[in-house]
Amino acid sequence: MEKLNCAGAAEKLLGWNKILVLSHASPDGDTLGSATALIRGLSFLGKQASFACADPIPTRLQYLFEDLPLYEGEMEHVVAVDVADPQLLGGLREEYADRVDLVIDHHGSRKEYGKSQWVEEDSAAACELVYLLLKEMEIPLTPEMATALYTGLSTDTGCFRYRNVTPRTMSIAAEVMAAKARAGDVNQWMFETKTLGQMAAERLVMERMEFFCDGRCAMIAIPRSVYEKTGATEGDLEGAASLPRQIEGVVIGVTLKEKEDGAWKASVRTNPPADASVICGKFGGGGHVGAGGCALGALPLKEAAGKFRQVCETYLKELEG
Amino acid sequence: MEKLNCAGAAEKLLGWNKILVLSHASPDGDTLGSATALIRGLSFLGKQASFACADPIPTRLQYLFEDLPLYEGEMEHVVAVDVADPQLLGGLREEYADRVDLVIDHHGSRKEYGKSQWVEEDSAAACELVYLLLKEMEIPLTPEMATALYTGLSTDTGCFRYRNVTPRTMSIAAEVMAAKARAGDVNQWMFETKTLGQMAAERLVMERMEFFCDGRCAMIAIPRSVYEKTGATEGDLEGAASLPRQIEGVVIGVTLKEKEDGAWKASVRTNPPADASVICGKFGGGGHVGAGGCALGALPLKEAAGKFRQVCETYLKELEG
Repeated sequence: MEKLNCAGAAEKLLGWNKILVLSHASPDGDTLGSATALIRGLSFLGKQASFACADPIPTRLQYLFEDLPLYEGEMEHVVAVDVADPQLLGGLREEYADRVDLVIDHHGSRKEYGKSQWVEEDSAAACELVYLLLKEMEIPLTPEMATALYTGLSTDTGCFRYRNVTPRTMSIAAEVMAAKARAGDVNQWMFETKTLGQMAAERLVMERMEFFCDGRCAMIAIPRSVYEKTGATEGDLEGAASLPRQIEGVVIGVTLKEKEDGAWKASVRTNPPADASVICGKFGGGGHVGAGGCALGALPLKEAAGKFRQVCETYLKELEG
Repeated sequence: MEKLNCAGAAEKLLGWNKILVLSHASPDGDTLGSATALIRGLSFLGKQASFACADPIPTRLQYLFEDLPLYEGEMEHVVAVDVADPQLLGGLREEYADRVDLVIDHHGSRKEYGKSQWVEEDSAAACELVYLLLKEMEIPLTPEMATALYTGLSTDTGCFRYRNVTPRTMSIAAEVMAAKARAGDVNQWMFETKTLGQMAAERLVMERMEFFCDGRCAMIAIPRSVYEKTGATEGDLEGAASLPRQIEGVVIGVTLKEKEDGAWKASVRTNPPADASVICGKFGGGGHVGAGGCALGALPLKEAAGKFRQVCETYLKELEG
């Protein structure tokens, strides 16, 4: 496996034609922004390029594919963008996992695959790398390429809010905005649009949130029975799980979700000085300083919540002891 | 009144000493970020500078004032940052409105005052201008200045989400991050922390939201009676008022709030093709394409809501006629 830098990756691409670009399954703004910007760039160079992804393109990201020039014939080279592990190719894994010629990725936790790779773990988004690659290949950014790159930059950083953002991320955002990326529209579509299910989930979370330890712990427990009642799905709850930690004064935010088999799964989010991995460790789980997870057995809701609450109380006392 | 550009404003400041910097009342991240970054810069030049604001500094913004070098003696020159109108000096208006030597501002809708001014309406934040000013005066950015400038950039743009962001905004953000602005911390404090009152307000909004016109209109009506019941204040509701428009499929989002005298005030937020100013115009109000407001009389809740609903229904029919 050959490790490349930006110039090396550009050299490969410049030497190829008939290039298939792969996105990861359950595609997001970064993998699709990267793939479509790259395809538009290769097409500018007169190359034939195509796209594949195991799962359907979410409606809200379909604008990336407007007037995308796609070649339909046999492909000779395969490039995977933002795919940290061949498993993440989903339904395309069997067909393509062993045929990837070039991997372009930014994930810290990843699996080595492909004949060659250009990986920069400090990059907030794969789209940062694709921007550098297009520049290296001297491809002028069209508004469509710029919009695709902006989509990846903004979606992988919570609109430039997360700690993965670097000065380079902001500089590239400035460049793609200057190249007429539809930043305002993208932000409205990505960050100011909620489905009814997401709203139901947020409401559910707020209604069920309980505080203890003088407001320093906030917990929500979601039994399966509530999904049908509220119209929210488990997927809708993903984002809402970060809510407890956001409340002013909260240092430990806990979300308990009942799984299909009746067992409880805990997601813990902490603010300094609390350490989520220590709390989750007491239940055989783990994680990082700010975020962790663990599994509780199949218990009645009250018992599961009580057990967790006790651990948090003891932990906070130790911490401040 | 003398109109200046950046170099002109810098020249003034370089010629002065004993400079009082004013922020607007109900101070926000941009007016305080601008003021404190400027004071730190002036202090680097060996000048004596001081600060005044009619209202207390919000707890969450007090980090801007850590180790801020403030001179306590008599001031000779007065600079107002991010203050669009002398009225906005609040309790300091009488004392200072006629004594402002230099206004640095970025508001489009403003009132002329002060002996000289540097105004750039295309600037997303006053902190963009203060950044340019510090650079013009050849002041090297310290991490504290950079953090103050980042605070203004991010808070006045919803963390780079609003349509006021320009490529320059992003470039300056890149520069201040490179100068060690605590961007991750600022974003967490400003955008990932909710008070219990804000959460109560969001919950209230979600509980009271009603849909009509096949889900294309969403309305919330907030009678005064709910504040006491929920613990939310009118101020807490400011942010939550943008929620109705955010629901997928909604083109008209309406928030009706009962005022102290029993009259109703409507805030309307629209997505294309709807035009908030047209809807509000039917009630004698106005606004822009995306946001407008108007006043209804003192009516029972049901009547006020019914009246507005009817106008929205008729408007949507006309629009799609």
